[in-house]
Amino acid sequence: MNYTDFDKTSSYKKLAALAANFRGKEIFAKLDEARVRSRNVPFGAGLTYNYAAKKVDDAALAALRELAAEQDLIGKYKLLLDGEVMNTGENRKVLHHLLRGQLGKDVLCEGKNLGTFYKNELERFSTFAADVHAGKITGSTGKKFTTAVQIGIGGSDLGPRALYLALEQWARKEGTAKLAARFISNVDPDDAAAVLGGGDLASTLFILVSKSGTTQETLANELFVKDKLSKAGLNPAKHLLAVTSETSPLARNSGYLDSFYIDDFIGGRYSATSGVGGVILSLAFGADVFKEILKGAHESDRAALEPDILKNAALLDALIGVWERNFLNYPYTAVLPYSQALSRFPAHLQQLDMESNGKSVNRSGGRLNYATGPVVFGEPGTNGQHSFYQLLHQGTDIVPLQFIGFAESQLGEDVDVEGSVSQTKLKANLAAQIIAFAKGKASDNPNKNFEGGRPSSLIYGKRLTPAALGALLAHFENKVMFQGFVWNLNSFDQEGVQLGKILTKQVLAAKGSSSGDSALDEYSKLLEV
Amino acid sequence: MNYTDFDKTSSYKKLAALAANFRGKEIFAKLDEARVRSRNVPFGAGLTYNYAAKKVDDAALAALRELAAEQDLIGKYKLLLDGEVMNTGENRKVLHHLLRGQLGKDVLCEGKNLGTFYKNELERFSTFAADVHAGKITGSTGKKFTTAVQIGIGGSDLGPRALYLALEQWARKEGTAKLAARFISNVDPDDAAAVLGGGDLASTLFILVSKSGTTQETLANELFVKDKLSKAGLNPAKHLLAVTSETSPLARNSGYLDSFYIDDFIGGRYSATSGVGGVILSLAFGADVFKEILKGAHESDRAALEPDILKNAALLDALIGVWERNFLNYPYTAVLPYSQALSRFPAHLQQLDMESNGKSVNRSGGRLNYATGPVVFGEPGTNGQHSFYQLLHQGTDIVPLQFIGFAESQLGEDVDVEGSVSQTKLKANLAAQIIAFAKGKASDNPNKNFEGGRPSSLIYGKRLTPAALGALLAHFENKVMFQGFVWNLNSFDQEGVQLGKILTKQVLAAKGSSSGDSALDEYSKLLEV
Repeated sequence: MNYTDFDKTSSYKKLAALAANFRGKEIFAKLDEARVRSRNVPFGAGLTYNYAAKKVDDAALAALRELAAEQDLIGKYKLLLDGEVMNTGENRKVLHHLLRGQLGKDVLCEGKNLGTFYKNELERFSTFAADVHAGKITGSTGKKFTTAVQIGIGGSDLGPRALYLALEQWARKEGTAKLAARFISNVDPDDAAAVLGGGDLASTLFILVSKSGTTQETLANELFVKDKLSKAGLNPAKHLLAVTSETSPLARNSGYLDSFYIDDFIGGRYSATSGVGGVILSLAFGADVFKEILKGAHESDRAALEPDILKNAALLDALIGVWERNFLNYPYTAVLPYSQALSRFPAHLQQLDMESNGKSVNRSGGRLNYATGPVVFGEPGTNGQHSFYQLLHQGTDIVPLQFIGFAESQLGEDVDVEGSVSQTKLKANLAAQIIAFAKGKASDNPNKNFEGGRPSSLIYGKRLTPAALGALLAHFENKVMFQGFVWNLNSFDQEGVQLGKILTKQVLAAKGSSSGDSALDEYSKLLEV
Repeated sequence: MNYTDFDKTSSYKKLAALAANFRGKEIFAKLDEARVRSRNVPFGAGLTYNYAAKKVDDAALAALRELAAEQDLIGKYKLLLDGEVMNTGENRKVLHHLLRGQLGKDVLCEGKNLGTFYKNELERFSTFAADVHAGKITGSTGKKFTTAVQIGIGGSDLGPRALYLALEQWARKEGTAKLAARFISNVDPDDAAAVLGGGDLASTLFILVSKSGTTQETLANELFVKDKLSKAGLNPAKHLLAVTSETSPLARNSGYLDSFYIDDFIGGRYSATSGVGGVILSLAFGADVFKEILKGAHESDRAALEPDILKNAALLDALIGVWERNFLNYPYTAVLPYSQALSRFPAHLQQLDMESNGKSVNRSGGRLNYATGPVVFGEPGTNGQHSFYQLLHQGTDIVPLQFIGFAESQLGEDVDVEGSVSQTKLKANLAAQIIAFAKGKASDNPNKNFEGGRPSSLIYGKRLTPAALGALLAHFENKVMFQGFVWNLNSFDQEGVQLGKILTKQVLAAKGSSSGDSALDEYSKLLEV
């Protein structure tokens, strides 16, 4: 396989030349029904990616098509699916797709079929969840579990939390709600104390999630919880589960009710469809619901194999993002779901994207001379319209936008005000925003002038179901992966988190004496460390 | 008063010249104990702003000092305090400081003393809250109110919600917790349905917050709630309060238990210290707690009058931000509170900053030729360290950082793991991150190399109390105000939100026939509007 830095490709030069003479605003002048209707790309579970309001013309699309071929983006995805070591820095395979189903060869490691391993773990925790629901597994007083609390941070928190919130009301409506779920992540002791405050520990099951079993925050919070359980006269071993790797100190440990396993080929931010998300979601909603998420994700993964960029939503989304980042020079992207259930989905995508592609070296460690991953942020609409959209509409810089919306609400409870229900108002706002950003509106009063020319895409579907959620999640994972391939970097390691860990240890070891850096000591003093 | 576009000032040229030859990384090589110790600026309620790790040297500070004088930033602040029309686009005074106490002349409007008016409203809702707590005011079945639900969006939601979450655990610890508070904002019908699900309506008090009394989302949610109340056999008029302006349809309306007033001089995003935040916070924690927030904010406001930029935290924070935005060309800022209680504070600051200064015209409507407000985003630490910090440390672009931390936790419940409690670990991480970002660490392995040179500031205090929270809130309000003065724009209007509203109405009025824009119609069709 050919691995070339982006700026060494011939498509890079072609795209740069196109950008130099690009007249983006003319595209929006021509944004009409036909353009909107013709630029829809379905990608699984009824979801469709529409790029009519993206600032890209046929010439740019043709160059992006060449780029996809030149960097062999589909070929690299297939290698990844087949178990090639794509996480070069850590010398690891990248197998989160395999959690959802097999699309490539059998992947073996030391004689073990990893697809089978992941499937077995899925069935093990599905059974465990069913036993909890049936009251066969209870807390140390025999009380049925009613609440599951996940203790984890980063990928063990943001993805699972976003997915839980996305389906909490759906499950209530569909009658599949089982346990309530809560999350403890921060080492700030107020986080754990707040989550535990007022809850009934006797009916609470804690899920400790750490692949290595050595995450500082998670272990501190585990001790915090065990201390509370013991003080309440409960046996911690009857209230704790572990999701970890088989080689971690948490594995096969009598301190836990049970342990479920992932391995080094499932990166934290890609682990929502493993036991990291699966245990708590199966406990909260039933394993069948979690399996629907996997099914939707698998559909997205399959759609991402399509070689034609105009029929591959994740690939196209990735390529247009590269065009915006490297040639239109937009350093950020906003994710704007018109669905309150997706309130924390942007926080998950922020991790997914920024931790994967916020890199300055290529996959072999060579220095890169072009921009890589953008800053990603977002909040649900219509809330954002009354907040930061001011800058998006009239600020001095352009922020590319990624809208998400659904035809139906999750709960279907609604009220008619002035001739329309709220769900209709929500969607009318979404459609209106896309046009307002793209076309703007001229005014003699410069303060009321909208320049337009602000690009957006729209992912839309019928309703936010478990399958749609899975497809949405995988779409963004695959988008980020393809961008990493374009940029020739490793989207699957995170060396940037290490230095802070080392310095933290130095501070804690110093205990008030010198850490070896006088400025660090002084900051510690200010904060009364 | 002199109002000059920033690029027409002589300090602009001086700063641009300095930036051209600026060697920022040398500053961090010299970051030592003395620099950290000497760059602390207290600003109220025990909070201090430290700028030792900002990429600014004495020459830049001297030029920023000239800028403050040339644009007469303190003089403009005083005019604002005295009731001058600083919201030029809407021809309004800007009086949120007066909510916290008087620092300028008496402000009169049509013979009415507005300071007195604000104080009277504060006392009116303080008394109302006390009556609710005492059980003198109850729901329509005579049941005591136990939950307050705010219905509002944008400034009526983000600020009050951030403040409530910031003090929820503190109040539990201090024994001042009264009513639980919840928030409905989005027009997505799932939002209201989720908040109401499972709650006891008979003991719930709803606070409808809309200055104009015409906000689409808020009125839709009001109807939703009234419908639920009526169906539960309750009298909505005994369960609803209004916070609005005296001229709105909600004022003096028998459909509400009572109404509390603000006026056009309190902008939505600046209204957290008015009844918009005050009613729900007084109900939740008692009016004395809310008054402590006001006291802290007032201290910040007073500190912001200091003419010496090195002794004025808000002014200095603003000026360094301008240096970063216009001369070091960083288009974003991350806000990173090391306090789980501040989990939604960045979302409030995102609105505050981006809605205030995301403008392209000056205060008279003239086109601006320089960058204005940055994109603002953030999540609490240490969570972010396991997420988007990868890009902050090793991404291709530099993101200026604003850390916030406290010596003590709010609840004081903690556990010792490996020789340190969690609060100590939290602070050790914070100190370590500042140094890691500033100094980096060279490595032969480029993937493990940290360039450093990434600037941050730190706001720190003893504990996140109501007064500290008020001081923090006002610090950022004043920072944003000073930046608006530098950029010669109006930080107090938001014309950018209007176009979307107009187009939404067109879609809703069209009801499936043409809205007048064929692309808009097609998007509406895709979303089944």
